[in-house]
Amino acid sequence: MKIYDTKTAPTPRRVRIFLAEKDIQVEYVQVDLGAGENLSASMRAKNPIGKIPILELDDGTCIGESDAICAYFEAIQPEPYLFGQSAIEKAQVMMWQRQVEFCLFMQVGMCFQHSTGHFKDRMTPVPEYGKEAGINATKYLSVLEKRLADEEFIAGPKFSIADITALCAIDFARVVQIRLGEKHQNVNRWYQQVSSRPSAKA
Amino acid sequence: MKIYDTKTAPTPRRVRIFLAEKDIQVEYVQVDLGAGENLSASMRAKNPIGKIPILELDDGTCIGESDAICAYFEAIQPEPYLFGQSAIEKAQVMMWQRQVEFCLFMQVGMCFQHSTGHFKDRMTPVPEYGKEAGINATKYLSVLEKRLADEEFIAGPKFSIADITALCAIDFARVVQIRLGEKHQNVNRWYQQVSSRPSAKA
Repeated sequence: MKIYDTKTAPTPRRVRIFLAEKDIQVEYVQVDLGAGENLSASMRAKNPIGKIPILELDDGTCIGESDAICAYFEAIQPEPYLFGQSAIEKAQVMMWQRQVEFCLFMQVGMCFQHSTGHFKDRMTPVPEYGKEAGINATKYLSVLEKRLADEEFIAGPKFSIADITALCAIDFARVVQIRLGEKHQNVNRWYQQVSSRPSAKA
Repeated sequence: MKIYDTKTAPTPRRVRIFLAEKDIQVEYVQVDLGAGENLSASMRAKNPIGKIPILELDDGTCIGESDAICAYFEAIQPEPYLFGQSAIEKAQVMMWQRQVEFCLFMQVGMCFQHSTGHFKDRMTPVPEYGKEAGINATKYLSVLEKRLADEEFIAGPKFSIADITALCAIDFARVVQIRLGEKHQNVNRWYQQVSSRPSAKA
């Protein structure tokens, strides 16, 4: 099996960290997003929306979407559980994972795409929306600040995929000048902790 | 247990259909989104981002996010499997579920929010972005058209949560004048089929 990856992009980093946490080694094939290599007919045959990462199994089956790729590896090698173990843990991890993704990760991404026009060859940037997305991302840091005052990790007492998504979002947010500030003491404590895990280098 | 619900909104409808497919009865409590009832301190204590639906268990534990609520019920009553059964099925369902959600459901929602200003008391509408979101949603119908030429359901041969998400998105899209057209024959065939399931009335 192999994973089509782009080393500099925040979404495929989520999968690399997830696999590092599970100590799973996979061959990575680099795809040049800037040159639009992901939008070729052969890549769209692997993933109809032409996004990276893509997991390609040895029988040719392809799975797009970082969470779906992670879910596959969680199913074939559950430990350490990164999507939760009990029914209630699974639900809590998915809740936080989604909220971090929609309210932080995607807002940072929209801020980047719409403010910088980086992908204007393939989408229509709306700078006013980019600005709003950046405001939304910053607001959500306050939600995380409150949450991390009560919990060690985002979804509760255990490290999970929600922490991976938040770490990748916060690291990428520097590109659009969104940074943790003095009022984010609990997020900062959490950030230092998750950043120092060996998987964060993946 | 109970679910905080808004009968007219597309997101909580996803949970109602999911539970109807599993034949699970739950008490629903209606929340008035238009009046901002979901943004009260007591509702934010249940879900920090103040969105509906919310599942409240008898011990007071609350789960927000429609997918997370569905994942909880999938874990406690797996059959019929709506998130896939094998590792590869789970990954394929999650992939399609996410792509339908990001590329169709959310684009329709953003088109509605940014074009109509319906929630302008709690967000800043950017009409130009609303228009782009509508264009994105329509483009994704062509991806589904191609997919449904080859498969009975969106994630493959079995009905799944991805079909529920797409059904709710397409029904809600009428509000922003996005409708299936003559070039969407396979989507139309699928739409007739999933709409006629008893769960679609939920």
